[in-house]
Amino acid sequence: MKGKVKVGILGATGYTGVELCKIIARHPNCTLVFLTSQTYADQRIHEVFPELRGVCEHRLIPLEDGLERRADVVFSCLPHAKSAEVCLRYLDRRIRIIDLSADFRIESPEEYKKWYGTDHPNTEVLKTAIYGMPEFNRARIKKSRLVANPGCFTTSILIPLIPLLAAKVIEPEDIIIDSKTGVSGAGRTTKVTSLFAEANENITAYSIGREHRHLAEIDQELTKAAGTAVKATFSPHLIPVNRGILSTMYTRPVKAALVAKVGDVYASAFRKAFQIRLTAAALPQIRSVAHTNYIDIGWKFIPETNRLIVVSAIDNLLRGASGQAIQNMNLMFGFEEGLGLA
Amino acid sequence: MKGKVKVGILGATGYTGVELCKIIARHPNCTLVFLTSQTYADQRIHEVFPELRGVCEHRLIPLEDGLERRADVVFSCLPHAKSAEVCLRYLDRRIRIIDLSADFRIESPEEYKKWYGTDHPNTEVLKTAIYGMPEFNRARIKKSRLVANPGCFTTSILIPLIPLLAAKVIEPEDIIIDSKTGVSGAGRTTKVTSLFAEANENITAYSIGREHRHLAEIDQELTKAAGTAVKATFSPHLIPVNRGILSTMYTRPVKAALVAKVGDVYASAFRKAFQIRLTAAALPQIRSVAHTNYIDIGWKFIPETNRLIVVSAIDNLLRGASGQAIQNMNLMFGFEEGLGLA
Amino acid sequence: MKGKVKVGILGATGYTGVELCKIIARHPNCTLVFLTSQTYADQRIHEVFPELRGVCEHRLIPLEDGLERRADVVFSCLPHAKSAEVCLRYLDRRIRIIDLSADFRIESPEEYKKWYGTDHPNTEVLKTAIYGMPEFNRARIKKSRLVANPGCFTTSILIPLIPLLAAKVIEPEDIIIDSKTGVSGAGRTTKVTSLFAEANENITAYSIGREHRHLAEIDQELTKAAGTAVKATFSPHLIPVNRGILSTMYTRPVKAALVAKVGDVYASAFRKAFQIRLTAAALPQIRSVAHTNYIDIGWKFIPETNRLIVVSAIDNLLRGASGQAIQNMNLMFGFEEGLGLA
Amino acid sequence: MKGKVKVGILGATGYTGVELCKIIARHPNCTLVFLTSQTYADQRIHEVFPELRGVCEHRLIPLEDGLERRADVVFSCLPHAKSAEVCLRYLDRRIRIIDLSADFRIESPEEYKKWYGTDHPNTEVLKTAIYGMPEFNRARIKKSRLVANPGCFTTSILIPLIPLLAAKVIEPEDIIIDSKTGVSGAGRTTKVTSLFAEANENITAYSIGREHRHLAEIDQELTKAAGTAVKATFSPHLIPVNRGILSTMYTRPVKAALVAKVGDVYASAFRKAFQIRLTAAALPQIRSVAHTNYIDIGWKFIPETNRLIVVSAIDNLLRGASGQAIQNMNLMFGFEEGLGLA
Repeated sequence: MKGKVKVGILGATGYTGVELCKIIARHPNCTLVFLTSQTYADQRIHEVFPELRGVCEHRLIPLEDGLERRADVVFSCLPHAKSAEVCLRYLDRRIRIIDLSADFRIESPEEYKKWYGTDHPNTEVLKTAIYGMPEFNRARIKKSRLVANPGCFTTSILIPLIPLLAAKVIEPEDIIIDSKTGVSGAGRTTKVTSLFAEANENITAYSIGREHRHLAEIDQELTKAAGTAVKATFSPHLIPVNRGILSTMYTRPVKAALVAKVGDVYASAFRKAFQIRLTAAALPQIRSVAHTNYIDIGWKFIPETNRLIVVSAIDNLLRGASGQAIQNMNLMFGFEEGLGLA
Repeated sequence: MKGKVKVGILGATGYTGVELCKIIARHPNCTLVFLTSQTYADQRIHEVFPELRGVCEHRLIPLEDGLERRADVVFSCLPHAKSAEVCLRYLDRRIRIIDLSADFRIESPEEYKKWYGTDHPNTEVLKTAIYGMPEFNRARIKKSRLVANPGCFTTSILIPLIPLLAAKVIEPEDIIIDSKTGVSGAGRTTKVTSLFAEANENITAYSIGREHRHLAEIDQELTKAAGTAVKATFSPHLIPVNRGILSTMYTRPVKAALVAKVGDVYASAFRKAFQIRLTAAALPQIRSVAHTNYIDIGWKFIPETNRLIVVSAIDNLLRGASGQAIQNMNLMFGFEEGLGLA
Repeated sequence: MKGKVKVGILGATGYTGVELCKIIARHPNCTLVFLTSQTYADQRIHEVFPELRGVCEHRLIPLEDGLERRADVVFSCLPHAKSAEVCLRYLDRRIRIIDLSADFRIESPEEYKKWYGTDHPNTEVLKTAIYGMPEFNRARIKKSRLVANPGCFTTSILIPLIPLLAAKVIEPEDIIIDSKTGVSGAGRTTKVTSLFAEANENITAYSIGREHRHLAEIDQELTKAAGTAVKATFSPHLIPVNRGILSTMYTRPVKAALVAKVGDVYASAFRKAFQIRLTAAALPQIRSVAHTNYIDIGWKFIPETNRLIVVSAIDNLLRGASGQAIQNMNLMFGFEEGLGLA
Repeated sequence: MKGKVKVGILGATGYTGVELCKIIARHPNCTLVFLTSQTYADQRIHEVFPELRGVCEHRLIPLEDGLERRADVVFSCLPHAKSAEVCLRYLDRRIRIIDLSADFRIESPEEYKKWYGTDHPNTEVLKTAIYGMPEFNRARIKKSRLVANPGCFTTSILIPLIPLLAAKVIEPEDIIIDSKTGVSGAGRTTKVTSLFAEANENITAYSIGREHRHLAEIDQELTKAAGTAVKATFSPHLIPVNRGILSTMYTRPVKAALVAKVGDVYASAFRKAFQIRLTAAALPQIRSVAHTNYIDIGWKFIPETNRLIVVSAIDNLLRGASGQAIQNMNLMFGFEEGLGLA
C-alpha cells in the first residue's frame, strides 16, 4: 500500500459516500484509510450497504475519530454548515479536502448566508477554495488544497451553458432551466416526500423559479462566464427514477447564425475534458449516463421561436457528485483526470 | 335499459378504450352496445383486460360490424386518418361521434396535412366539428353531432393558458411549455421506446421545440384566445410513470401587477367548469390527479425574472382523453357534465 | 345529512385512513364527522393529501377530541397497542368500532403477547370481537359492535385457502406461501427501507418462514378451517409497486382427483361473496385489482409434483384494509355489503 | 492489438449483446472484431444504444458477414434454434463458441425437442458442448470449444442448490422455487407484456409449476448433483425492475441437524469460485447485485415447518448471462476467471 494516496470519507453512509467507497476501492493509486458515520458508527459499512460486501468492508468510526487518522485527502459528504466546521479542522492538519457540501462553493459570504441561513465560519479560508469543476478550473484545482465540489443540478447546467455564454453564443438574459432529478438527489434522509409510495407514479415541481439553493452557484458561475449578471429561472422536478438528472435549458441565441457554431464552441471548450459526449440532435437521456461518469449534451435550434434548447444528462451521484470529486482528487494529486473512473 | 343512451366504442382495446368501458359500465344513463377491435375480434374484452372481468365482458367485434349496430353515440379510439374515414360513415347513419383521434381537431385542412401528412377526407364535415373542451365550448358542444376530443398534452396546456391569454394577463409571445408524460400516452402499440426496460429508470426529451403534433391544436386555440398568432415552444418528456401529464409553463405577464389577478381570472373563467382545482402556490402533482378526472392548476410569479410559471397536472387517460370525452357526451345528451365521473 | 351513519376515523393521515376518507365521501349512507391525526392536527386533510381537495376537506383534530364527537361508528387506523387502548374508550361510549390494527384479531391473549410483545389491555372485550372477513363471518359481523379488520397479507391468503381446507381438498400440512407486496403496505412512516431510492429497482425477502406477525392470524383461521393445527411457511417480499399483494400458495391436494373440484368449492363458498373473481388458469395479477376492492383467485394443479398452486391478487389498501372495512361497516348497519364500493 | 483475443458477437443489439460489448470494450486481453445485427445492420451500435457512445462504436454487420471475419471466439446472443444453426458454421471454421441461447444446454435431444419444439440440428456436436457454469465445470470449460451458457433463472437456482444436493443436505424431492425476475429478462423484443404501462405497477406469475423452459436445465443439473431424478416446482414472476432475479427456494433438509453445515458446504464448494457472496441470515436483495456479476446467497432454517429456505440474487444480464459468459471465455483462453469483470 506504500505510496498510495490515503483517503478518508466523512459521512460515508449517504449515497455519495457509498459511491466514493466503490470508486476508491478499485482506484489503482488510492487506499481507503477511514470512513466516518454518526448513525452507523462501529458497524461495518457492508452491513449497512450489502452491495459493498467483498468490495469495501471498513468499520465505520465516529466523526471525531477521523481526526486522529493519517490521511492525504478527505472527502466530506456531511451536510452543509456541519461540513465547513469539520473540514476546517482537517485543513488545520494540512490534509487536503474535497467538500461535497455547499459550504465552500459560494464566494460571497452574504450570498452564502442568504441561501443557507448561517454565517460562514471562516471567510478567509473560503477565499482559498476552488470551485471544483475541472472543465473550467483544471489548472487551479491542481494546485488547490480545498476544493468545493459542485452541486448536482449545477453540474448538469454549468457544463453546457458556460461555453455558450463565454463565446457570446447565447444571451445572458432569460435563461430558463427545467430540471428533472431522480430521488437519490434528496439523499438517504428519511422524509415523507422521499418515500417510495409518495414519489413513485408521481411527478412534482418544487422550489420553482428562484428558490432552489443551487441558484447561488448557478448564477455565480454563469455571471463569471457571461461577464454580466445572470439570473436564471430554474425549476427542479422530482421524477421516479433512482439516479439521474436531465436538464432542459431554454436559451436565446445572440444571433440565429451563431447556432451553427455550437458544436465547434463545445469541441473547443472541452478539448481537454473528460467524459463529455456531444450528442447534438440525438438528445441525451438518463439511461445512457446512469451508473457512469459521463455527461451527455445535445441541442436544437427552434427558428420559429428563436430558442436554442440545450439538454444535458448526468448521473447525479457520479458526474454530479462522487465521480466529479474523484476527477478533482486525481487532478490535485497529479494523476490522469479519469483514473479509476473509466 | 330502455331510455338509456346506446354507446359504441371503436378501437376499444387501447388504453383510452378501456377507460371508456369502465366509465360507461357504471354510467347511470348509458349502455354499451358494441366494442370493436381488429386485433382481438371475437375475444371478450375481459380476456384481453382482466381488470374488466365482472365489469364489462362484451365480445369484441370487427370494425365493419359496428356499422350494423344501433347506437346513439360512438366514441372513436382509432388512430388518426383511419378514424376520420370511419367516423364519416357513422355520421352518415346519423349517429353522434366523439372522436378521440386528431382528425377533427385542426380547423385548417392545410395545417392538418402539414402535421399529419395526409389530406383530410372531408373538409365540409370538418367545418361542423366542435373542439370538445367544455371549459370554452360548452354551449356549442351541447348542440354538436361531431366532437373532436382534444389531445392529452393540449388539455393540460389549454385549460390553464386560455383564460390568461383571453384576459390579457400574459403575453402571447415567448410561451415555453415543458411537459412530462407517463408512458401510457404512447398507447398500447408495441414499440421499443415503450418497453419497460427502455422507459424505466429513464427520462427522455423528444420532439422538442416545434415538432410535436399537438402544437397544431395548441397554437390554434391559443391564437383564438389571444386574438393574435401564438407559436409556443413545446418540449415533451417521457417519464417512467403509467399515467399523468405535468406541464410546466413559462409565461411572461403583460404587467407584473396583473399576476395578483390570476386567481380571479381563473375563478371567473371556470365558474361553470367541472373538476378543476386551483391549487395556487401549492403546486400540482401527478399523484393527486392520477385515476381521476381532475385537472389541478397552480402558479407562481417570479419577480426577479418576470416570469409567471403555471403548472398543471392531469391523468392523460381520463381528463386528457376518456374522462373529457364523457364530459362531452354528457353535454351532447343534456346530462350533467360530470355524470358518471364523480 | 339526517339519517346518515356518522363516521369518525382515527389516524386518518395514513394510507388506509385516506382510502377510507375517499370511500366515505362518496358513500350514499354515511357522513364523515371527524378525522384525527396527531402529526397533522389543525391542518385540513387535503393540505396533507392534495388528492382530497374538493373531495374531503375536514380539519384534522387531536385524538383526544374525537371522544367528544358524536359518531355511530369509528374506524381505527392507529398502530397496534395504541389502537386497542383508544378503541376501548369509544366502545365505552357505545360507539361501534372497526379496528384496522391487529389488536382484536388474535383470539388468544398469549398468542397476541407472543407476536406483538405486549399484554392485551382487555381480554374480556377481546372475546366479543369478530374477525371481520365477510366471506366466512357475515352473520356474526352483522351483529357485532367490534370488528377486527384482517391484515392485508392475511386477506390475500385466507380467502383462497379457507374454502379448500374446509372442503378437505388440500392437506393442512406443508402449506408454503410466497407473498409479494407493494411498498404502501409499510405505511407512511418514514424508514430507510421504504425510501424510493432503496425500494425501487429492488426486490427483498424479509421475515421469511415463521417471523411475520400476520402468521398469528393466518394460523388461527386456517386451523379453524382445517379442524387441525396449521402452521404455514410464509415468506413476504417487498416489490417496487405502490399498491397490491400477489400471494403464490403451494399446497398439496388430499387426492389428485379433488383438484377438479376446486372451481365448485369456490363457487359454493363464495355464493354470497362480494367482488371475488375466480380466474382459474388465467392467473391473477396486481394490475387487474389495483385501485379496486376485488380479489382475484387463480389456480393450477401440477401433477408431476402433486402441487396445487393457488395465486391471489388484491389491492392491499382496499380489499386488504379499507375496502374490506367498508364491507364490514355495511354489514354492521344493515346495508348491502358492497354499498359505496362498486 | 496483436496478441489479443479476437471477439465477435452475434445478435449484438439485444440486452445481453450490449452488456458483452461493454465488458469486452474494457477487457485487457480482448478486442472486438465484429458485431452482427439483422435489425440494425449498417448502423453503428452507439446509434442504437447511446450509452455505448465513446465506449464501443462498431458498425453492425449482417449475420452472414460475420463468417468472413477472423475471430478467436464468438458469443451468440441469437434466439434458440437459429443460434445452433449459426454456431455450427463458426465451429466448422474452428472458432470457439459461447452460446447464450438454450441450444446446447440440454444434453438429451428428446428433452430439447420436448421443451423447444424442434429437432436439434446436430446431436453429435451437442455431445461436445460443455454446460458453462464455472462453479461446477471449471476444468471442462477450460478445454472446451463450445460452451452452453446457462439460463438466467437457472443460474440463480443451480449455484445455491447443487452444493446442497451433492452434499446430501437437502432432499431431492419437493423442491419449490419461487423466482422473481426483472423485465429485461424478456429481451428487447416488442411484446405487449413487456410494455412499460403493462409491467409497471404490476406483478404477474407466469408459466408456473412445470412449464418454463429453464426446467429442462434445472432438472438436468439438479438430477446430476443429487444422483437421482429431480423434478422441481418452479414459478417465475415478472416484477417491475429492469434487472435482477431473486429466487426463493423452499427445500427440505435430510436431517434438521444438517442445516448447521450449510455455510461449510458452501464454503467448500465455492472455494475457487468467483464473486459468490454468502450472506447467510442477511438475506440477499436485487439492489446489492444489480449492475454487478455477484451472486449473493442467503438461507434460513424454519424448524416449525422443517424447511430450509435458500434465497439467491443475481443481475440477470450479468451473472445470469453476459458476465458468466465472460467467465467462461476467460477460462477457455487461460485467463483469470474474473478478468475484466471486477
